[in-house]
Amino acid sequence: MAGNTFGKLFKLTTFGESHGEAIGGIIDGCPAGVELDFEAIQTELDRRKPGQSKITTQRKESDTVQFLSGIFEGKTTGTPIGFIIPNSDARSKDYDHLKDVYRPSHADYTYDKKYGHRDYRGGGRSSARETATRVLAGAIAQQVLASQKISINAYVSQVGSDRCEKHYSKLDFDNTFSNIVRCPDDETATRFIEQIEQIRNEGDTVGGVVTCVIENTPVGLGDPVFDKLHADLGKAMLSINAVKGFEYGSGFEAVTMRGSQNNDIFENNEGEIKTKSNNSGGIQGGISNGEDIYFNVAFKPVATLMSNQQSVDKKGASAEVEGKGRHDPCVVPRAVPIVRAMAAIVILDAFLMTKTTEV
Amino acid sequence: MAGNTFGKLFKLTTFGESHGEAIGGIIDGCPAGVELDFEAIQTELDRRKPGQSKITTQRKESDTVQFLSGIFEGKTTGTPIGFIIPNSDARSKDYDHLKDVYRPSHADYTYDKKYGHRDYRGGGRSSARETATRVLAGAIAQQVLASQKISINAYVSQVGSDRCEKHYSKLDFDNTFSNIVRCPDDETATRFIEQIEQIRNEGDTVGGVVTCVIENTPVGLGDPVFDKLHADLGKAMLSINAVKGFEYGSGFEAVTMRGSQNNDIFENNEGEIKTKSNNSGGIQGGISNGEDIYFNVAFKPVATLMSNQQSVDKKGASAEVEGKGRHDPCVVPRAVPIVRAMAAIVILDAFLMTKTTEV
Amino acid sequence: MAGNTFGKLFKLTTFGESHGEAIGGIIDGCPAGVELDFEAIQTELDRRKPGQSKITTQRKESDTVQFLSGIFEGKTTGTPIGFIIPNSDARSKDYDHLKDVYRPSHADYTYDKKYGHRDYRGGGRSSARETATRVLAGAIAQQVLASQKISINAYVSQVGSDRCEKHYSKLDFDNTFSNIVRCPDDETATRFIEQIEQIRNEGDTVGGVVTCVIENTPVGLGDPVFDKLHADLGKAMLSINAVKGFEYGSGFEAVTMRGSQNNDIFENNEGEIKTKSNNSGGIQGGISNGEDIYFNVAFKPVATLMSNQQSVDKKGASAEVEGKGRHDPCVVPRAVPIVRAMAAIVILDAFLMTKTTEV
Amino acid sequence: MAGNTFGKLFKLTTFGESHGEAIGGIIDGCPAGVELDFEAIQTELDRRKPGQSKITTQRKESDTVQFLSGIFEGKTTGTPIGFIIPNSDARSKDYDHLKDVYRPSHADYTYDKKYGHRDYRGGGRSSARETATRVLAGAIAQQVLASQKISINAYVSQVGSDRCEKHYSKLDFDNTFSNIVRCPDDETATRFIEQIEQIRNEGDTVGGVVTCVIENTPVGLGDPVFDKLHADLGKAMLSINAVKGFEYGSGFEAVTMRGSQNNDIFENNEGEIKTKSNNSGGIQGGISNGEDIYFNVAFKPVATLMSNQQSVDKKGASAEVEGKGRHDPCVVPRAVPIVRAMAAIVILDAFLMTKTTEV
Repeated sequence: MAGNTFGKLFKLTTFGESHGEAIGGIIDGCPAGVELDFEAIQTELDRRKPGQSKITTQRKESDTVQFLSGIFEGKTTGTPIGFIIPNSDARSKDYDHLKDVYRPSHADYTYDKKYGHRDYRGGGRSSARETATRVLAGAIAQQVLASQKISINAYVSQVGSDRCEKHYSKLDFDNTFSNIVRCPDDETATRFIEQIEQIRNEGDTVGGVVTCVIENTPVGLGDPVFDKLHADLGKAMLSINAVKGFEYGSGFEAVTMRGSQNNDIFENNEGEIKTKSNNSGGIQGGISNGEDIYFNVAFKPVATLMSNQQSVDKKGASAEVEGKGRHDPCVVPRAVPIVRAMAAIVILDAFLMTKTTEV
Repeated sequence: MAGNTFGKLFKLTTFGESHGEAIGGIIDGCPAGVELDFEAIQTELDRRKPGQSKITTQRKESDTVQFLSGIFEGKTTGTPIGFIIPNSDARSKDYDHLKDVYRPSHADYTYDKKYGHRDYRGGGRSSARETATRVLAGAIAQQVLASQKISINAYVSQVGSDRCEKHYSKLDFDNTFSNIVRCPDDETATRFIEQIEQIRNEGDTVGGVVTCVIENTPVGLGDPVFDKLHADLGKAMLSINAVKGFEYGSGFEAVTMRGSQNNDIFENNEGEIKTKSNNSGGIQGGISNGEDIYFNVAFKPVATLMSNQQSVDKKGASAEVEGKGRHDPCVVPRAVPIVRAMAAIVILDAFLMTKTTEV
Repeated sequence: MAGNTFGKLFKLTTFGESHGEAIGGIIDGCPAGVELDFEAIQTELDRRKPGQSKITTQRKESDTVQFLSGIFEGKTTGTPIGFIIPNSDARSKDYDHLKDVYRPSHADYTYDKKYGHRDYRGGGRSSARETATRVLAGAIAQQVLASQKISINAYVSQVGSDRCEKHYSKLDFDNTFSNIVRCPDDETATRFIEQIEQIRNEGDTVGGVVTCVIENTPVGLGDPVFDKLHADLGKAMLSINAVKGFEYGSGFEAVTMRGSQNNDIFENNEGEIKTKSNNSGGIQGGISNGEDIYFNVAFKPVATLMSNQQSVDKKGASAEVEGKGRHDPCVVPRAVPIVRAMAAIVILDAFLMTKTTEV
Repeated sequence: MAGNTFGKLFKLTTFGESHGEAIGGIIDGCPAGVELDFEAIQTELDRRKPGQSKITTQRKESDTVQFLSGIFEGKTTGTPIGFIIPNSDARSKDYDHLKDVYRPSHADYTYDKKYGHRDYRGGGRSSARETATRVLAGAIAQQVLASQKISINAYVSQVGSDRCEKHYSKLDFDNTFSNIVRCPDDETATRFIEQIEQIRNEGDTVGGVVTCVIENTPVGLGDPVFDKLHADLGKAMLSINAVKGFEYGSGFEAVTMRGSQNNDIFENNEGEIKTKSNNSGGIQGGISNGEDIYFNVAFKPVATLMSNQQSVDKKGASAEVEGKGRHDPCVVPRAVPIVRAMAAIVILDAFLMTKTTEV
């Protein structure tokens, strides 16, 4: 209820501040008997961790997970999986100057007002550092889904005004993590990286879009009327730091289309019912229809800048926020595994739910 | 869990098919002692009901609500409010030809596959008819919020490619329902209506955008990290039939902005901490900051057309869907009270939650 | 959250006051494709309804259920089942004298203080009349469970100090509803009826115990550590009006036993692992072990008497509660179907949950 | 959903096996700004920890809690409180002989069947070791409640057939922890201790009752119809290891009483509405009425004995369980802080919920 749990059957509850001792969480409802690939989990965490390239923050965290329960002899036991990820490079001192000043477009002001008392170091609970716990849970969910042949991929499809023009079906997702900006199209990736570097040099930041594609989903995922599959995906994405928008299938573009253009015509494809187009984004009436599920997630430019900004302090007095600290010039490269993780949690949850539809 | 409940403290659970005896619901957790304005509730339902103008479906439903419990001597008692809205103009016969055929971009196929057995008449549970129950619950929520001076308005801001160019702050929301397309700017409204009529005459349909503005919210609504206020708003909106996208504040446009442009600078405004701009859309770190909350909801063109469409039947055989039945050429005019209702439920829920943050 | 929903996957949400227009509810999460026996549902409701015999209240209600959704052509569709049971013999006038007086050991005082404003007629929401909705949901759950060969029986095992001395395994549950007190042992039933009649004649009331036996459950129901099967059963039973205690297996008697007496020794019974005794009541570590599940539910004597009682009114002034109105001299005969219904809901919920334990 | 979360607004989610690296949990929804007394928390943990006296198990655990988040400068921040309690004296080797054998009346068999794969060391997740996390959360809840003057006490009122004959109102709760059996009446405590020592010497175990008394509760706690205060208390208690029964107020004894005896007559006590007797146990219609809340919790004799017991192994073959290992001869002395903790969580949860009843 208090907002730190996500999921209904595969449930992730998280804790942790940016500069506390550790962040961590509990996964409740993971099916039993799943053999985990711990290396794959750590790899996914590494893709999110700070300090990994020249276009990410320079904070250094190994983000090494310690599993404390729920796994025995390498396999899940069906009991809750407790885990922690220690904070090692938490230079709290760096944040002393922010104790009483509200950084523009951060959560300093709202947390202070809501709770009265907050851990201001590095944004405390509002720091995107908590998303590491999501990546971990999502990595486990992906392994469970892989046993059902469901695969989830995400990549950076836009940085600033520059888009990857290729349709996702023309991309090789195996190539996504071969570059630091996480766009599987090398040419586009090069452009994206150049743009980010330039903006970083200007002391500024820029937004971007992460596109996610879920392939080989069965028909039947999603629970209308309120827990429509895309509604749960949307909530999952919007809960990620810096996200400003979500659209699936033809999305906002559908607004400008006619029904006769946007409708997906059913056809019999070698004995299977399929649709000719997929403006529905693989979801009709809130339930997956077996086509690819795809959606876009819009991220705003990071609020922390290298330039000084005007602001106020706790008492409302004028104050200046210095342009220092370690931060990302563009959040989307590190957001790719987070988007994928949250998608995996939603899909696994919906998948488990389908098992209760009949006796 | 099975998807027919929305909200955590102010909880709406709904039931009902398009052509069953009635739709209805239960509101649990409505504060006690609230004097209800029943006329205002019915007015809001009338704004959503079918058959109200030349640009909506011609199905005739009075949508008269019957309250069965939870209200005594005109005031809420804190016990669950049970209600039903009978289906009176349910011409089920009209749908016999759809028993075995899957209408394109409807939920016929997915419901059939998910549940095995479905009420196919008029879309059954997947019909937007269920949103009447949301409008009712939202109307009650709005009355509770009004006692806190919080006001919620929604209007049609785009039809097809044509946008209302005025910023919401320049509009008079009292004017919204003065025209049948529900855009408070008369000139734009006239254009919107013309466009819809033309498309209807062509036997086609078109999409649109509903913009929602929430004014006078207190600081502190929203429960990070998963139940961020905009994540709950996003889920609420995405759960409405035909919605394809959601964005708040600077939204998808933020992607193309620099941090230095998008950041909202704090200032001391006569003793109150305010922001100079509001790209944050009134929400920072998932918590309301006291500025206006505003967001856009993208609706696709209605899938039911007046032209025949190719499709398949249950057995995968080729079949044609006839272009008949009663439907809307554009869904956004009737969606305005639905968007407002869902926003009211989310805001009231978040408001009640803030009361538990301290003892 | 506000307390009117029970269950996690098979969820019942209810509404309704004793003297409002109707009571009713919504069942969400009922598996799809279940062919319902409507006569059996009504029979179960008839077993709870008032006015059915000389030892129950004389209020006359047909308790005829109207299903409004979720069922099509006689089978469940997986969408929510909405239903109402109209209040027909609601003689609200009879309760005018209770508007401002607090009846002893009723909920008049606590509802008044908690909510500020209440429907005082016949106890309003606190009336046991709401349990009719539970019986209905339980009857549906029983039909689903019957397809899994799980059977649930309940009977009156004690009235006042007089107990049915036979072990449940010696009783013929088919005989339970052959007498008005619902004890399958005829001799004991005769004694129980006599006792209740005598106490009624004295203008007084008496308590009793309902025993419930669940046979043929699979191993594995229940979700530790908090949702242990007996914890969920206990909550279900304690939520029934007038219940004061719950015990399962050896129950309170286990307190006085030695471990060597109370332990259930495992044995190989023709290839199946069984226990020699069943002090565990079919549940070990919160999970069903395949043996019979059995438990006792203690009901207090009905608080409404035929004799006058001293009390106070809203203002704290001395007042007398007149010994009139329609009530039961002993609640347990009508409680039998309620206990069985709540048990069925818990067991079905736990059963559906087991389907999510593995992929 | 998967059973490892308790509470609605003040929510405890736990993890951990008896012989894993650590047990721990997350408290979500703790009000912000509460100054914590860490010593008092540790004291309560010490009262549950093993190895503390001659009548408890000899396993040695310091049960030192490490807080990882949600607390800053000694005060709660409203964000989730993550914590771990390391397992230090986990002699897993001691349990190798139990890998394939099912101990009588333990959860070995049911966990094995339910999950297919389990951590068998020391009972794994089914070990009462997890209750340490409950004691911790309850200790925090008690501190929040203390600010509202609500106090919660528990004590051992029965061991085997021997009861503490004094009414709770005659006892000095400050004396409860002055003896190792946790009965505030010294004379009774001496008898209890003697009985337990004797039974331990016989290699056997014995059951007992813990009585809990909650004083100074406000009127209005509890959410009918399903979340009646005593139903939530009952579930909380029944979820504790080894509990077989729960009764509140006049409890099972009410069965044998007449309505005229059991009813609690209201009276005006110096301007306050009070009841003359308290058979209702402070709860009427599921809502607290301001009188003392009291209830009894029945614990079975510990299943682990010092004598050998017959059993079967995984394959159904006959096997003997050796009478060794470290265990308690009677569980109730260590259960006292657990009962108190769970009561505190339920009461705080209900208290927070009351804040949402009105606007």
